[in-house]
Amino acid sequence: MYGIFSYGISNPRVGFKHGNYILDLEVVGLLGYFDDLAIDPAVFSQPVLNDFIALGRSVHRAARQRLNELFANDASAFSDVHDQVFIHESRAQMHLPVRIGDYTDFYAGIHHAENVGRMFRPSGDPLLPNYKHIPVAYHGRASSIVVSGTPIRRPNGQFLRAGTSIFGPSEALDFELELGLIIGKSNPPGDPIMVEEAEDYIFGITLFNDWSARDIQRWEYQPLGPFLGKNFASSLSAWVLPFDELEPFRVDGPSQEPTPLPYLYTSGKKHFTLELQVWLQPADGEKICICRSNANYLYWNFAQMIAHHTVGGCNLNIGDVLATGTISGTTPGSYGSMLELSWNGERPLHLSETITRTFLADGDTITLKGWGFLNGVRVDLGDVTGTIYS
Amino acid sequence: MYGIFSYGISNPRVGFKHGNYILDLEVVGLLGYFDDLAIDPAVFSQPVLNDFIALGRSVHRAARQRLNELFANDASAFSDVHDQVFIHESRAQMHLPVRIGDYTDFYAGIHHAENVGRMFRPSGDPLLPNYKHIPVAYHGRASSIVVSGTPIRRPNGQFLRAGTSIFGPSEALDFELELGLIIGKSNPPGDPIMVEEAEDYIFGITLFNDWSARDIQRWEYQPLGPFLGKNFASSLSAWVLPFDELEPFRVDGPSQEPTPLPYLYTSGKKHFTLELQVWLQPADGEKICICRSNANYLYWNFAQMIAHHTVGGCNLNIGDVLATGTISGTTPGSYGSMLELSWNGERPLHLSETITRTFLADGDTITLKGWGFLNGVRVDLGDVTGTIYS
Repeated sequence: MYGIFSYGISNPRVGFKHGNYILDLEVVGLLGYFDDLAIDPAVFSQPVLNDFIALGRSVHRAARQRLNELFANDASAFSDVHDQVFIHESRAQMHLPVRIGDYTDFYAGIHHAENVGRMFRPSGDPLLPNYKHIPVAYHGRASSIVVSGTPIRRPNGQFLRAGTSIFGPSEALDFELELGLIIGKSNPPGDPIMVEEAEDYIFGITLFNDWSARDIQRWEYQPLGPFLGKNFASSLSAWVLPFDELEPFRVDGPSQEPTPLPYLYTSGKKHFTLELQVWLQPADGEKICICRSNANYLYWNFAQMIAHHTVGGCNLNIGDVLATGTISGTTPGSYGSMLELSWNGERPLHLSETITRTFLADGDTITLKGWGFLNGVRVDLGDVTGTIYS
Repeated sequence: MYGIFSYGISNPRVGFKHGNYILDLEVVGLLGYFDDLAIDPAVFSQPVLNDFIALGRSVHRAARQRLNELFANDASAFSDVHDQVFIHESRAQMHLPVRIGDYTDFYAGIHHAENVGRMFRPSGDPLLPNYKHIPVAYHGRASSIVVSGTPIRRPNGQFLRAGTSIFGPSEALDFELELGLIIGKSNPPGDPIMVEEAEDYIFGITLFNDWSARDIQRWEYQPLGPFLGKNFASSLSAWVLPFDELEPFRVDGPSQEPTPLPYLYTSGKKHFTLELQVWLQPADGEKICICRSNANYLYWNFAQMIAHHTVGGCNLNIGDVLATGTISGTTPGSYGSMLELSWNGERPLHLSETITRTFLADGDTITLKGWGFLNGVRVDLGDVTGTIYS
């Protein structure tokens, strides 16, 4: 996985995560290990991955292959300079991995959408009529995306209490378990990305926590969607897993009925089985796993999200983030938000004999974890963590 | 007004609009006219205004004062170099004036909101319950903002026809008459901007056309708001009018009932009377004024928009665009969108004896115009124009 790190007085630069160590790619480049690959080492001296991403997938593959070769030698290639190229992650500070132009959040987790529908429209169909026709999404706030580990301040805002609008700290602070795609290639304005080619536009994948203030969101969201209920913070993993690394985990997705329109139609294995977990650690308690879900619960696949996003001509840029929306499973232990886990606050979650939660309390730390594990191959995503304070 | 222009083989740089001429501020700076103001002329050599904006309002005022002095001398200061500093606008190509981090669109035009409510919820209150409590807004797509003059391609998309979802070119392409604020100062994440200080965060103002595909928007917008119905393009004026220039046009806004919560409460003249017009020119017809509106029809003022946007901790950055939403008046001739002017297509607009419109046709050119005129003082906003093609 690639990320941006600094340590001591160093400038932020590109690193590659190898176990508990970070390989300093700026130094590896200066040592000449990428010279024959036509990679300017300057791309590794940048405080964001965007320039490296812009080199394109064939170069990423060559770079990865080179790293594999070096690691296969048990890193003996670096034996003389080990301490200069391998930084223990405990010594590093991580930074936001990409300069994000725009951020889009989808709503592709169908069980999440159904749960929300059941809670807020109990008499109707849990899914709105458009759900299985279009990958519903909204534009989020790029400036509010922070790197994993950044403390999350409980937002103030306006919401209803007993029918009266009041102002104060959110009383329904929530997380959302999501995946984030990092866009790897731009399309010109007016030039849609065909669904068959859409995966070529993904540089990599991250875990993503779209923190939400449900009380603020509920009062504001009609008719134009979420705004302050979301834009106080979203947490992105410090580490981006290149899309290629997901290959071993391809699976069939859910059957899509009705058949999507041609611009959204995909065949073959376009979904991925990735285990996803959410852990909650109260300030004064044990870390508890409160959700076990899987990326394969998504209704719409990544290619469909990208094809839909651009079909009207919208341009994507390198470093843009497309998040999936909350990925919930079908059973309560697999729900990817407190809103669902506590069923809108009606069923408090028991973390221990003395600690319960409906929504998040100050001091709570939420950690998202994810990995692929299939046919003996295991690949980890970078954790996303954040602690609430007021 | 400030903008980014190029001509011939020049790089894009900062210009100041003076009548039909553009004053080349890069050259004026190199001639030393800003030396005593501690303005590095390099800010005028940039392809966006962001570096100039970052200098802050006191420097902007000093620069403006210096320009006034030069113009008061009937530009004789430049008599030897007239052709190098003054470029006729017909020779210039204009560029997007700012690098936009994030773009937000409000819904502050109350008569527009009422009209939409009357059309789509005919049996209920035209305004949703939150409307007079919060300046409703959504996040837009920054990458899709283009400079005035850019041709606008009719988007393809998915929408309903006779209850069936189909894919094709939008059949309900619309404009929206809006103002855009250009943010002039950043606030750190987690640090709200108080409503009393909010105007200090505005660098300047523009006209803004938030093109909309109503059929796509209608099918997609539940529950997360507009997405592809908007993100194919929005047009921003090439010229940004510094906020100071609006001072002569301050007026009282509408009475706000209920009284806004303290974080949104303003007193004094926080609204502006600015005449706004929309002109439609069919490919084969005369240019017709189809809307005469006024900025004073906004319910929420600029300070309230900024205070609300940041109250939960969301950070604004220099160059961000906050648009007002469609500004409609109270009578049909003052409606700021085709949706309202044709009452959702039910009442075609007669442009001539032979030409009618419900929504926009290919070849139509929409031009937004705006100006302040009060007590003998007149200040113009930069036009926003765009022609539809398929």
